[in-house]
Amino acid sequence: MTAKTASDPSPKKTVPQFHPAVIIQRKRDGEVLTDAEIRFLIAGLLDGSVADYQLSAFLMAVYFKGMTPEETVSFTRAMLESGERYDFSDIPGAKVDKHSTGGIGDKVSMILAPLAAACGVVVPMMAGRGLGHTGGTLDKLESIPGFSVKLPPEKFRAALKSVGCAIIGQTEMTAPADRKLYALRDVTGTIESLPLICGSILSKKLAEGAEALVLDVKVGSGAFMKSKDQAKKLARALITVAKKSGLKCRAVLTNMDQPLGNAVGNAIEMIECIEMLKTGSGPTDLKEVTIQLTAQMLEAAGKVRTVAEGRKLATEKLMDGSAWKKFQQMVEFQGGTLRVIHDTSLFAKAPKKAEWKAARRGYITKMDCEEIGRMIVDLGGGRKKTSDVVDSAIGFYFHKKLGAKVAAGEPIVTAYLPDGLDIPAWERRFLSALTISPQRKPVPKLILETLS
Amino acid sequence: MTAKTASDPSPKKTVPQFHPAVIIQRKRDGEVLTDAEIRFLIAGLLDGSVADYQLSAFLMAVYFKGMTPEETVSFTRAMLESGERYDFSDIPGAKVDKHSTGGIGDKVSMILAPLAAACGVVVPMMAGRGLGHTGGTLDKLESIPGFSVKLPPEKFRAALKSVGCAIIGQTEMTAPADRKLYALRDVTGTIESLPLICGSILSKKLAEGAEALVLDVKVGSGAFMKSKDQAKKLARALITVAKKSGLKCRAVLTNMDQPLGNAVGNAIEMIECIEMLKTGSGPTDLKEVTIQLTAQMLEAAGKVRTVAEGRKLATEKLMDGSAWKKFQQMVEFQGGTLRVIHDTSLFAKAPKKAEWKAARRGYITKMDCEEIGRMIVDLGGGRKKTSDVVDSAIGFYFHKKLGAKVAAGEPIVTAYLPDGLDIPAWERRFLSALTISPQRKPVPKLILETLS
Repeated sequence: MTAKTASDPSPKKTVPQFHPAVIIQRKRDGEVLTDAEIRFLIAGLLDGSVADYQLSAFLMAVYFKGMTPEETVSFTRAMLESGERYDFSDIPGAKVDKHSTGGIGDKVSMILAPLAAACGVVVPMMAGRGLGHTGGTLDKLESIPGFSVKLPPEKFRAALKSVGCAIIGQTEMTAPADRKLYALRDVTGTIESLPLICGSILSKKLAEGAEALVLDVKVGSGAFMKSKDQAKKLARALITVAKKSGLKCRAVLTNMDQPLGNAVGNAIEMIECIEMLKTGSGPTDLKEVTIQLTAQMLEAAGKVRTVAEGRKLATEKLMDGSAWKKFQQMVEFQGGTLRVIHDTSLFAKAPKKAEWKAARRGYITKMDCEEIGRMIVDLGGGRKKTSDVVDSAIGFYFHKKLGAKVAAGEPIVTAYLPDGLDIPAWERRFLSALTISPQRKPVPKLILETLS
Repeated sequence: MTAKTASDPSPKKTVPQFHPAVIIQRKRDGEVLTDAEIRFLIAGLLDGSVADYQLSAFLMAVYFKGMTPEETVSFTRAMLESGERYDFSDIPGAKVDKHSTGGIGDKVSMILAPLAAACGVVVPMMAGRGLGHTGGTLDKLESIPGFSVKLPPEKFRAALKSVGCAIIGQTEMTAPADRKLYALRDVTGTIESLPLICGSILSKKLAEGAEALVLDVKVGSGAFMKSKDQAKKLARALITVAKKSGLKCRAVLTNMDQPLGNAVGNAIEMIECIEMLKTGSGPTDLKEVTIQLTAQMLEAAGKVRTVAEGRKLATEKLMDGSAWKKFQQMVEFQGGTLRVIHDTSLFAKAPKKAEWKAARRGYITKMDCEEIGRMIVDLGGGRKKTSDVVDSAIGFYFHKKLGAKVAAGEPIVTAYLPDGLDIPAWERRFLSALTISPQRKPVPKLILETLS
């Protein structure tokens, strides 16, 4: 090689080999990378030929310089192709999924998956765990004793065939490059980058075998995107990359300035879902978002011609007990103890319970939802790091939400707490996350916009 | 700890622990880091508590967001204090050094160190190896058989005491954090960052025990800084941080649009130095830069009152053989074979020699100096990676430089080459790095500006 190089008067003109440092520099300088360069990095991440410290520098360069839609598609495909991809084309029916960007009290998936299945679409849902201030669907499901989110591929397939829906965790085989990169982003300050978020979400959604995807992009104090502009940018980026990757996609922007529903915390959120599935009723915001997202899924699947028709069908299947039946089948298939969902008093109970009360009369005009989420995490009901064990009994049940009129001393929340706390101090922390004003303020609109 | 955290209602208000990811995010968001945060990162780099992949993300964030002078001082001090610092206060005389940002044919140090010592200052010079397109002082010195650049601390001290100058390499003990960070920057596209460059240069210069530093900031086609503006920015940053760190500092901007002197390549550059030390004469540009930088050192040391006086003293000591005597003492002290410096025909010889000639008549108006440096590297006379072994015999001796009138077929350079080359192809590559125009153009000014 040395002799070859030495006798070549113009080494700049030979076919270029990829060098990680050169690719990093090109991205750093705002250049557009080729598909081959991006694949080289992702392959190198997995086989170790590109070092973690090179990838993290690359991720930070992407944070600052972004990626074109084409680059993001290459990035997403490279991660998708790093693992195995489910193919459910032999299972009859449209395969449709929903993904939420995460919020406080967001328990929609547990109702929506069996509801959509009851309406006749197949829902191969691969969900996540709570990290940061938001909860995770898998943690909520695991509050049902015995419920397993680790189905081997053949059981996942069997669940979709026989039940029509299943909610599982990302396996070792699904987009392993994404798991590795996500772990790296988490500790290198590179989470908040649109193309990286797009790649991470969509590589998993493409792997799970869905043909269409409805995104619930949360906006507000409890969401990652605090402003509607930011949320729209993310939604547009996700839709563009999903479509270029062959996945039908639309996004519904929904408000997250207060918890969705009344319950926040794994077990009590599960109980709220079970009540709504059983009775067809419950908190109106939770029901509205669930029906709207399900209707979008049905329309995307071609099951109905309009979203209005989808809403009608979904409402029917929620009210007539079909969704509740599907839910029971799903819980049974995934090993959950049916006795517990029939008698929700059997869910884990917190050792301490407290009513936290309004310090003065007025209207609740603001909630720092992220702080409420952080309190749940600090109390042991969520995760600071992936290895943390979650206490499913911890939670807050809200009696009053935005716009509610409260008297001084009136309970706002019932808190389910661990032992050994200085409860009054925690009550003060909770109350300081709320604003009670003498004047009523308009409550933010729940469903803001639909993009496709 | 868990119980403690759980009973603390306001974990945000407790004394903050440092988290690498948080520090990275703060820099990413353009915030100013504290001294304690920067020290935490550098300490973590050495004890392994901060991972390489976190540091590289941090370095990329610094690339984009920069550092204030205060942050750069903290960064420099943290790296300095990661290792040992020489203290030569017991050796009489001012300790002064020079540092060049690197160029083609820049052999000033080999003449300047003994010359400044001959003028009565002490020169504790810690120099570098060639990497990229520029050569390195240590490689040039090692073309003298036996010359050792690895002096243990007590021998370095003894050299300064008895000779007054020594040129050594960075040891394991000197700013180890800088060595580790530099290696990381090299492979993560984070070399070209002013605060990182400042920290790297100055942590070493502060460690070597100099009290004053004269910077030779190169500008032009063969320098890292291609424009005067860029070079001034670097010079100003270096001066600011040096002064805040307690090091007297000034910078001379010098032109690097053509090689300095006539020789490029380790052995032939060494021979050019020896000729100038022996006879007091040689290429005028080399002599001028050497005298000017030495004069600045003498004035900074308080050895003379004005730079003009310094020039006079330096010229005298070059002409009267004092510098040549010091050089011989230095070579002897550092184990070099004196016979070789007295008979330069004994230096390593290249197997092949070629005269490369002007293709047409005219004036040499431009040289792509970086390309000339790259040719030397590609021919084996420099390094592509730190582990490469350098062939000291490889080089170009220039008979014509910028502004010279050449006839068609007149030799421009004598090339010292390895065996097995397609020499005409290399000649074409060389000639395409030169511009020969029918019209004469003004030759760039050699010494552009002095900043302090």
